[in-house]
Amino acid sequence: MSAAEAEIAARMFKALGDPVRLRLFSAVASHEGGEACVCDISDVGVSQPTVSHHLKKLKEAGLLTSERRGTWVYYRVEPSVLAAMGQLLAMPAAA
Amino acid sequence: MSAAEAEIAARMFKALGDPVRLRLFSAVASHEGGEACVCDISDVGVSQPTVSHHLKKLKEAGLLTSERRGTWVYYRVEPSVLAAMGQLLAMPAAA
Repeated sequence: MSAAEAEIAARMFKALGDPVRLRLFSAVASHEGGEACVCDISDVGVSQPTVSHHLKKLKEAGLLTSERRGTWVYYRVEPSVLAAMGQLLAMPAAA
Repeated sequence: MSAAEAEIAARMFKALGDPVRLRLFSAVASHEGGEACVCDISDVGVSQPTVSHHLKKLKEAGLLTSERRGTWVYYRVEPSVLAAMGQLLAMPAAA
């Protein structure tokens, strides 16, 4: 792994290194249709502005993509990240 | 994903959220025999004490296991982490 590759991947891991952000990532990944807006996420126990802030951080790290439709911005997991993360979050060590 | 699960998984991601630590993790995972001691790692550009420090942090996060044999401590990737991480680190988005 080169230093440049490590920089990019470490930024992604760092973004997931916060329990609230990780739960939001998981909520987007597991939401119906594979996408979610702030309006869909209410069970993580933080306010909507906090949810918005964290979703933006996840996007900046390359983990989510976003699309505005009407009033809301919809987020989905970047496809190349999805399979690997699904496996990772389902592993016994993380249970 | 429950709050408790998120705490454990976020700790693992956080440990990998540093480029040097990530390269060390990758070096252990890809080393011959699937294990490495500090003596085996010389190409990440940091001193042996720094390598030791980071390997301990990765162990504390549950990503590596260790075994002392003679003078050296040998590290290997926790088996449940290995498959998922291998896939993750090989994905196009991290290249």
